Amino acid sequence: MLIREATAGDWPRIWPFWHRIVAAAETYAWDPDTSEEDARALWMGPAKCVYVAEDDTGAVVGSAYVTPNYGGPAARVANAGFMVDPDRSGLGIGRALAEHVLRAATAAGYRAMVFNAVVETNPAVGLWTSLGFRILGTVPEAYEHPRHGPVGLHIMYRAL
Amino acid sequence: MLIREATAGDWPRIWPFWHRIVAAAETYAWDPDTSEEDARALWMGPAKCVYVAEDDTGAVVGSAYVTPNYGGPAARVANAGFMVDPDRSGLGIGRALAEHVLRAATAAGYRAMVFNAVVETNPAVGLWTSLGFRILGTVPEAYEHPRHGPVGLHIMYRAL
Repeated sequence: MLIREATAGDWPRIWPFWHRIVAAAETYAWDPDTSEEDARALWMGPAKCVYVAEDDTGAVVGSAYVTPNYGGPAARVANAGFMVDPDRSGLGIGRALAEHVLRAATAAGYRAMVFNAVVETNPAVGLWTSLGFRILGTVPEAYEHPRHGPVGLHIMYRAL
Repeated sequence: MLIREATAGDWPRIWPFWHRIVAAAETYAWDPDTSEEDARALWMGPAKCVYVAEDDTGAVVGSAYVTPNYGGPAARVANAGFMVDPDRSGLGIGRALAEHVLRAATAAGYRAMVFNAVVETNPAVGLWTSLGFRILGTVPEAYEHPRHGPVGLHIMYRAL
C-alpha cells in the first residue's frame, strides 16, 4: 500500500466511497444527501492537506485530510478526517492512514490533534484509542443513528 | 435593551467590537488579523441566525449567532457565539443575549447547544455555567493566551 498526497484528479476515485459512507449516516455528521460538489469542498477545500491510500493495483482505497481545528491563537491544534472504502475494511488501511497523518501533522508543527465528533458506536473509536487518543468528553445523544437511535459524539484528543 | 434579529445593515455596527475582541486574541480562536470581509462571513454567513442587542439610544452593543454545530444526523445540536462591546461589559448584555438565543434555539427545534472552544480563562465560563451549561471536557493547552500562556479550551454543553 502507498500513502501519498492527493491531487485534484483523485477526487473522482474518492467520491464513490465518500458518498457511500456519508449516505449510510452512521459515522459522519454531514448531510447524507451532500452533493458531489459540496463533498469535494468539505474534503478537499483550500485549508485541507489531503492524502490517499492506494493498493497494489493503484486503486484509491482510502483518504484522509488534516486541517487546523481552530484558528488564530489555537491554530496549532489539528483536526483530521478518515475514510476507507467499506469494501476494503479490516485490512489496516485506516491505521496506516492515521499513522501517516499523525507523522505529517507533527512535521507540520501541530502540537495536538482533536476529533470533534466521533460517533460512539463507530468501531474506529478503538483504533483511535490504540493510537493514543483519549475521549475528552461526549455530547450525549447528539447523533441520530439509523440502527442504534440517539448516540453520543465523542471529542477525542492526542498530543503530538 | 432590545434584542432583535440582525439585518445586513447591522454589520458595520458589529464590526468595531468584533474586530477589537478578535484582535485581543484572548477569547476567540480566530485569526486576530481577520479581515472585515472574512469576519462578516464568519459571523453572518448563510447558515447563521444572527441577533443584535441595542441599548436605549439604538446603539448596537452586542451580537450573537446560532447555527447547527454539526450536519446530517446531528443537525439538531446548535452552536452559538456571543460578543458584547467591551465598553459595555458588566451590564448583563451577554446574559440577555444568551437567554434570548437559548429560547430561539429551542423554538427552532434544537435539542442541545454546544460551545466547541471556550477559552478556560474567559470570564464567560461562569455565565455559561450559571445558564446550565457544563464542561464536557477540555483540550489542554490548546490556546496561546497573550498573558496567561497556553490555556485549555472547554467544550461546553446544555440540553434544550
